[in-house]
Amino acid sequence: MDRRSFLRTSALGGTAAAASAGLAAPAIAQSTRTLTMVTSWPRGFAVLDDAATYFNEAVNAMSGGSLIIEKKAPGELVGAFEVFDAVAAGQADIYHSADYYWIGQHPGYAYFCAVPFGATAQELTNWYYHDGGQDLHNELGAIFGMHSMQCGNSGSQSGGWFRNEITSAEDFNGLRFRMPGLGGQVLGKLGASVQNIPGGELYQALSSGALDGLEWVGPAADEKAGFQEVAKIYYTAGFHEPGSGLTASVNLDVWNELSPEHQAIMDNAAKATTNYQLSQTLAMNGAALARLQAQGVRTLQFPDDVWDAFGAASKEVLDENMGDELYAKIRNSFDASLAKSSDWLLKSDAYFVEQRNRVLG
Amino acid sequence: MDRRSFLRTSALGGTAAAASAGLAAPAIAQSTRTLTMVTSWPRGFAVLDDAATYFNEAVNAMSGGSLIIEKKAPGELVGAFEVFDAVAAGQADIYHSADYYWIGQHPGYAYFCAVPFGATAQELTNWYYHDGGQDLHNELGAIFGMHSMQCGNSGSQSGGWFRNEITSAEDFNGLRFRMPGLGGQVLGKLGASVQNIPGGELYQALSSGALDGLEWVGPAADEKAGFQEVAKIYYTAGFHEPGSGLTASVNLDVWNELSPEHQAIMDNAAKATTNYQLSQTLAMNGAALARLQAQGVRTLQFPDDVWDAFGAASKEVLDENMGDELYAKIRNSFDASLAKSSDWLLKSDAYFVEQRNRVLG
Repeated sequence: MDRRSFLRTSALGGTAAAASAGLAAPAIAQSTRTLTMVTSWPRGFAVLDDAATYFNEAVNAMSGGSLIIEKKAPGELVGAFEVFDAVAAGQADIYHSADYYWIGQHPGYAYFCAVPFGATAQELTNWYYHDGGQDLHNELGAIFGMHSMQCGNSGSQSGGWFRNEITSAEDFNGLRFRMPGLGGQVLGKLGASVQNIPGGELYQALSSGALDGLEWVGPAADEKAGFQEVAKIYYTAGFHEPGSGLTASVNLDVWNELSPEHQAIMDNAAKATTNYQLSQTLAMNGAALARLQAQGVRTLQFPDDVWDAFGAASKEVLDENMGDELYAKIRNSFDASLAKSSDWLLKSDAYFVEQRNRVLG
Repeated sequence: MDRRSFLRTSALGGTAAAASAGLAAPAIAQSTRTLTMVTSWPRGFAVLDDAATYFNEAVNAMSGGSLIIEKKAPGELVGAFEVFDAVAAGQADIYHSADYYWIGQHPGYAYFCAVPFGATAQELTNWYYHDGGQDLHNELGAIFGMHSMQCGNSGSQSGGWFRNEITSAEDFNGLRFRMPGLGGQVLGKLGASVQNIPGGELYQALSSGALDGLEWVGPAADEKAGFQEVAKIYYTAGFHEPGSGLTASVNLDVWNELSPEHQAIMDNAAKATTNYQLSQTLAMNGAALARLQAQGVRTLQFPDDVWDAFGAASKEVLDENMGDELYAKIRNSFDASLAKSSDWLLKSDAYFVEQRNRVLG
């Protein structure tokens, strides 16, 4: 008798007593399974840690405490960018992070977070669950021994914080700028000196002058990080992360050992997290933007010819990895879904919003 | 000792045996609680019954079978529009429906589904969880003895199916058209003879000529209903339901008797349903639209002056119930959230999508 069937049998003795009363009783936790989660976010970091926290609390509540996730912020067990390797190696059970941090491990990971000129949050979710995205995420995860789940979304990320206005694409030449993922490679094509620095160290880098500018998330998270204190120009729309998916990835051996109930709880907790945390972020962004402007921040949009330069460089970057079969498979699946998905959204949602603005003024 | 604490105690006897082994075990269902769900949708109806089905399966899976929801389609226990009263009266435990069907019970219910010129699916969710929407839903629910949860969304609904093109607002005069909720009242202001007919009876009404036109959901659901066989003009954007929230409402006594685990499971299953079913609908709509066009359906948008007429009549309808204190409270909360939420979305998501279309062509 293996460990699991032993436990099931011994627990069933007690169950019989309750069942024989002929009345319904709530599921009761037999004992506690604790998983260690490593994240890329300092505790309390708006948007990102909000997602990890919601997920962990939902799992705990739904399992009646039989499945507990213990969160370790960067530095408590491993560094912010070491969480992937820690879960792959079994040093931790699960990570919560942004998968474009792992383009060094495999360039296809970018698509499960954000790619330049890619999917909005809604389009990403459409692809993920209904056009093959999650299966491809797990095809990639199988290489590293992981089961992956979309678990949160930042919404469309802002273009970023700058000390000086951007009037042409040449202004990126030599600019020391923080932008991770493929977006950072795009700015590299425009001559920027691109650096990927963990979120917790950005304020210091910007205020010390080590960075000329940075993008982080959006008004709510950016305000909390305090960037408005050291830069006053804020581009609201960006090309680089139109809706960054966050990921919870579980070590595959750990995942396979979970009961079907615990797997279902984690799967649905991840979906509930995206619903709850994305809407939280978007609800907060409007109010945060108004406060930032009240503190003297100027909000701008990049000129069209800068967007054109972003577009040309993005195509180059996205094409570079097409020699990798799995990357090509992921990209083609993503692009096909996006084309289909965006067509209806333009003809319905977007047209409605345009008319609502026109009619209501 | 009440029933519940008795069951908890007797179940714990068995738990101790498992716990004493000092090993982790999955949560095991003690026995089964079955809730009866009545819905407004025929079994297998795309989008709407998809949401109810996802919710029920998620609850079952996450609870390890300790909480089962048994679904009754219209006619199996009560009619499509009797589900609210059935749950209020305790004849059924939970309903899955669209809350604008209950504007007769209270006009404020419209806001938890859709109102003319109102919120997109994302804006509705932002309000619901983060700007007071769910609390107001339950303030309303308390009057009728219900606990309510957003549980799915149709996305932006299409303008509808017509036998003849709409060239001015006058074309609605005398038109026999199906549209529920406040949107139907708006068309009434334009002289339409508005009828609310359950989804399962619409195809027959349109093909028999009892209706001149109708709106149902969107390409995926509409195609499945077969409307393209009897009408060939399809307006893609509509003013009336920019993102219709679906609702699961539980009889309040039943809800209060559920264990905290089962409550958490239902709450998160509802959030996961919105995430999963909305994205499913949107992923399907693009492909369905292409197939409809291939069958000779013409897709159109209403002219601007028709949108202006929709706008003026919508304002009249929305103003009519402002004498009701709770309606006014709900409307003001909704409008305030929408204004805040839409500002950031316009400056980020919408601007990005505009540039993506411009740059990628």
